[in-house]
Amino acid sequence: MHSSVTKQTGFVALMIVQIIFLVLYWLFVHYGKEALPIEDSGSNEQHDSKYPHFQDIQVMIFVGFGFLMTFLRKYGYSATGYTLFLASLVIQWAVLMKGFFKMEGGKIELSLENIIDADIAAAVPLISMGALLGRITPIQLLFMALFEIALFAVNEYVALDILSICDVGGSITVHAFGAYFGLAVALMLRPTKDQNDAGKYEGANYLSDIFAMVGTLFLWIYWPSFNSVLADGTGQERAIVNTYLSLAAATVTTFVLSALVSHENKLDMVHVQNSTLAGGVAVGTVCNLLIGAHGAILIGIIAGTVSVMGYRFITPFLTAKLRLHDTCGVHNLHGMPALISAIASAIYAAMVTREQYKSDLGTIFPAMLNQTEIEASNTTELNAHIMGGYERSASTQAGYQLFGIAMTVLVAIVGGTLAGLVLKYTNFRKLQKEEHHQDELYWEVPEERKDE
Amino acid sequence: MHSSVTKQTGFVALMIVQIIFLVLYWLFVHYGKEALPIEDSGSNEQHDSKYPHFQDIQVMIFVGFGFLMTFLRKYGYSATGYTLFLASLVIQWAVLMKGFFKMEGGKIELSLENIIDADIAAAVPLISMGALLGRITPIQLLFMALFEIALFAVNEYVALDILSICDVGGSITVHAFGAYFGLAVALMLRPTKDQNDAGKYEGANYLSDIFAMVGTLFLWIYWPSFNSVLADGTGQERAIVNTYLSLAAATVTTFVLSALVSHENKLDMVHVQNSTLAGGVAVGTVCNLLIGAHGAILIGIIAGTVSVMGYRFITPFLTAKLRLHDTCGVHNLHGMPALISAIASAIYAAMVTREQYKSDLGTIFPAMLNQTEIEASNTTELNAHIMGGYERSASTQAGYQLFGIAMTVLVAIVGGTLAGLVLKYTNFRKLQKEEHHQDELYWEVPEERKDE
Amino acid sequence: MHSSVTKQTGFVALMIVQIIFLVLYWLFVHYGKEALPIEDSGSNEQHDSKYPHFQDIQVMIFVGFGFLMTFLRKYGYSATGYTLFLASLVIQWAVLMKGFFKMEGGKIELSLENIIDADIAAAVPLISMGALLGRITPIQLLFMALFEIALFAVNEYVALDILSICDVGGSITVHAFGAYFGLAVALMLRPTKDQNDAGKYEGANYLSDIFAMVGTLFLWIYWPSFNSVLADGTGQERAIVNTYLSLAAATVTTFVLSALVSHENKLDMVHVQNSTLAGGVAVGTVCNLLIGAHGAILIGIIAGTVSVMGYRFITPFLTAKLRLHDTCGVHNLHGMPALISAIASAIYAAMVTREQYKSDLGTIFPAMLNQTEIEASNTTELNAHIMGGYERSASTQAGYQLFGIAMTVLVAIVGGTLAGLVLKYTNFRKLQKEEHHQDELYWEVPEERKDE
Repeated sequence: MHSSVTKQTGFVALMIVQIIFLVLYWLFVHYGKEALPIEDSGSNEQHDSKYPHFQDIQVMIFVGFGFLMTFLRKYGYSATGYTLFLASLVIQWAVLMKGFFKMEGGKIELSLENIIDADIAAAVPLISMGALLGRITPIQLLFMALFEIALFAVNEYVALDILSICDVGGSITVHAFGAYFGLAVALMLRPTKDQNDAGKYEGANYLSDIFAMVGTLFLWIYWPSFNSVLADGTGQERAIVNTYLSLAAATVTTFVLSALVSHENKLDMVHVQNSTLAGGVAVGTVCNLLIGAHGAILIGIIAGTVSVMGYRFITPFLTAKLRLHDTCGVHNLHGMPALISAIASAIYAAMVTREQYKSDLGTIFPAMLNQTEIEASNTTELNAHIMGGYERSASTQAGYQLFGIAMTVLVAIVGGTLAGLVLKYTNFRKLQKEEHHQDELYWEVPEERKDE
Repeated sequence: MHSSVTKQTGFVALMIVQIIFLVLYWLFVHYGKEALPIEDSGSNEQHDSKYPHFQDIQVMIFVGFGFLMTFLRKYGYSATGYTLFLASLVIQWAVLMKGFFKMEGGKIELSLENIIDADIAAAVPLISMGALLGRITPIQLLFMALFEIALFAVNEYVALDILSICDVGGSITVHAFGAYFGLAVALMLRPTKDQNDAGKYEGANYLSDIFAMVGTLFLWIYWPSFNSVLADGTGQERAIVNTYLSLAAATVTTFVLSALVSHENKLDMVHVQNSTLAGGVAVGTVCNLLIGAHGAILIGIIAGTVSVMGYRFITPFLTAKLRLHDTCGVHNLHGMPALISAIASAIYAAMVTREQYKSDLGTIFPAMLNQTEIEASNTTELNAHIMGGYERSASTQAGYQLFGIAMTVLVAIVGGTLAGLVLKYTNFRKLQKEEHHQDELYWEVPEERKDE
Repeated sequence: MHSSVTKQTGFVALMIVQIIFLVLYWLFVHYGKEALPIEDSGSNEQHDSKYPHFQDIQVMIFVGFGFLMTFLRKYGYSATGYTLFLASLVIQWAVLMKGFFKMEGGKIELSLENIIDADIAAAVPLISMGALLGRITPIQLLFMALFEIALFAVNEYVALDILSICDVGGSITVHAFGAYFGLAVALMLRPTKDQNDAGKYEGANYLSDIFAMVGTLFLWIYWPSFNSVLADGTGQERAIVNTYLSLAAATVTTFVLSALVSHENKLDMVHVQNSTLAGGVAVGTVCNLLIGAHGAILIGIIAGTVSVMGYRFITPFLTAKLRLHDTCGVHNLHGMPALISAIASAIYAAMVTREQYKSDLGTIFPAMLNQTEIEASNTTELNAHIMGGYERSASTQAGYQLFGIAMTVLVAIVGGTLAGLVLKYTNFRKLQKEEHHQDELYWEVPEERKDE
């Protein structure tokens, strides 16, 4: 009875959040000019060409994340359901939080662009959720996501607009942030020593593993859209091609290593479902740079290797030594590959020359422009906030790339620690060990299932 | 033996229908100019930009509807198979039926546009099928769909071209029509009083519920494409953004209410699979109007509320009192949300001003144009059939919106009643109670399944 | 133990292949001009409009093929996993093999175009894999695919550039080639007479059949993108519309015939999963010709009929008489429908006139151009390799179409026979009868599954 009352309070709080969103939209959001009627219908400009990219990303967020997490055999309702719920909540919130940094006349201008940004932001708490899958309630998720998105918006603004780092595919601002935030929460919520064993239901069965492949395959397929949606001009074509090749190389490498490190050289579905995607994360920050096809393939090979090794050796180590549980292994799919991407971005940034990048210099590394170029350009808006000002050298830019990832990881860990402390020491209903990794507490489950 | 002979006759009839289609296409259909070679290849115009929207809608029709209906635990072959079969039949038929209203020189001009329209039309009998799922045979479905599409084409023509109502996302002409037609058929086929209990197999199991989420998620993701495909100019961007926000708000609301009204505050997969989508239906007719982001969110909240309440209270009531069975709850997902959309369209239409809508007035509400505007415009074709002529006031347009939904519901109910009477009192093979909601009668089912 | 060592060697070989790819890319591949920075960002050309088509094809390759093959009840990890692995390997290899025919200055120019081509090429070994599903190891697949892609690239070059046949949807060069190559391998690997019965696990169960429908539906939906991606101008719109109608007609026909030829007139999921798609293959080569909507529907009806009859009568015959096993029935889905498409292409080519095809003549049948037209055109590059030179008559073109399919089938059978002999008589680890159609040998499978 008591549990039910608490649940009820939680859901009422969620309704209040939704109503607050309604009010905030009423007060602060209006259509941007792309969505407003124009005087003369003759000049009908083409619909924004990013729409197909947007729809691909939608599939990644809702079907990709949702089904990837169905691998737990008794947690399929939660995996797909909470993904849908959390993303629906977060996209509304992200439009507001990201919009507050760009308000004009006290209003957020709404168009397709904002909702693309919101979809990307939705990936952040979904990544964190992966670290905590099956161990926290939807109401805890709600709180975590609201706080995390606010912090994400600040960190992203600082990284992209003030530090002026390149991060077109979001490996730093999205993947590293989401992963280390989630891991910090997981560390705060770690079990006592006598409860550190795997949960009774913490595993896949044959069919849940196949459902998870629906998620993996759609994430794989549409990853080039995720990495390229914010790229411009010819950088977009590079982002597509490089992401594709990196994924392919990471996939082949994953199969090899999975077989070599596993028992009896058998392939492990955990690796196939996750490490095959590490190539997409690891190439994210650099995918629109001139890394060459071989650069993309090399990054993919490294990412696949690191990710499989992570699942095989690092995750069990963290669980055993730090009692840091990471249900989906987000450290291996998002965390370490994002670090690789950040390091790669510093290396490639250090080698940037005007001769090679031509007009892409300004779109990819605006802080490297000099006075003449800024004046000549009519596309670049002058950004007074860039740390250290314009005219950065290549090696300075490389330094800022490293600064960017260091700051992001730090902010994520501090933020996640705070969030974890709140979730642990305040009045939130918490799950008991025996309630982990199963739908029954929050879902009506058909009778047949309960017998299992 | 007898049953097999009847089935055989039904399938032979289906083949004859397909051959009649072949002949009708031979006689009446030729390529439109978009699909015909041109003199000078230099002037190669861009391929129609609606193609990505079209493919999104294809996913909704085939995967979305197909998998949404797999929630029945012994009806998965039928859910996916009949969706594929019915849609394949209907798209061919809809090109003809809708084309007959626009023939030029006795020929239907075929291009991408027609098959987009046909895909949208395919949603109509699939919605109706949801009300009847598991209780009628594929041959009954065939007959129902052929009749329904013919009636749908007439009703849509009257609503859009004569009444000149706005309905860009089809909530009135597609959702309300399909839902009330299907419910009327269901009422005609209602069981006797002693057979009014739920069927033995009328329920989900754990895995069928997860399969259904494949349908839900793809419908959710691509709904903005469905609502915006026929919108023009900046109205298309509004349609996308508004649909997205309405879906998000409906989803959050659905989770809250599902928990609050259910036993022990547990979430109900029926709500999650269906009511989350009600936001897409409820915003359909108004999604390209200037409803504002807050308007979209408000509509989503209302739709989610009404839909969950419908599943929880209205559907059981209708089943108990009227013996009106509605397997998928189309009344809650399509019927009531479509009514909300129609009412919203009257409210927003009543507030339309030239100052706000500028050049969109003519594309959204052509009947409100005045003589000067029609002459100035070179895009609007003069439509001599508009009821009451041009120069409608905003409040008159509002009235026509209400007239449009009233007519549509009436036509759908009368048509569905007729179709139901034919299905009941003529020679169609009918399903017995014990044959309901299971694949075995029409499908080869693996042995293991039969033991269950 | 011995088996494990052999497996290990195989996976090490795979890693070496991936590293060789890395080196070859380093040496031979650089970005094409579409992916290189430009001087002036003002002239930012639109991103290539084929990107949405590309993503649709990605879904077909990875989700479509992968899930279509999950119909085997104990082979779901392999179906989805090997598809992912094999496609990842092949797309890297196909960029190289196809690129070698178009090198400029010793370099392959890389852009979106190459990876679209690579995706299409990935379909070839996946089709062949369908014939062999469950009977060969991933390392055998690896070898087969590398050899097959090399041969495919040569055959395609000869067919399209030298014979100058039309084959926009790849029915000849992709589907016929993949199917007959795979069947030839299967014939070489045929069992001894006493082992010719079906394998213990060679069958579906209820849920594996529903998973397979995920594959079928996505293949169905996106087939218009596959057939139209390489079409130009108005031919692209015809390719879309014709493919759509042919699929619809094949689907209706499949349902009818499946019921009529099956036991007790029950529908067979094998037909529904596969023969419904035969319309897409059969219209492939001619989909951008002026075949008319009725032509597309007629081809669909024929394809559905031939495919169902093939599953019902020809496949069992081949298995019984030739011991030719064809797990997925690729002969019925890809082989025979591709022959239909080739024959149709000869018939329609024989009827081509300048008056009808106008400027599309040069894009579809370049060898039919005459001297004046070539000079007038500034889009067509002069191709010195065309067999028999320019100025072909319609009937000559028809002859070449038949020559093209005959050559392709011959090359595929010879190549497949060679590959099969190598797989059989060299040191590859082979599967024993009892190891067929089940994941366990190469995958970690959850305990519960092993009991079955």
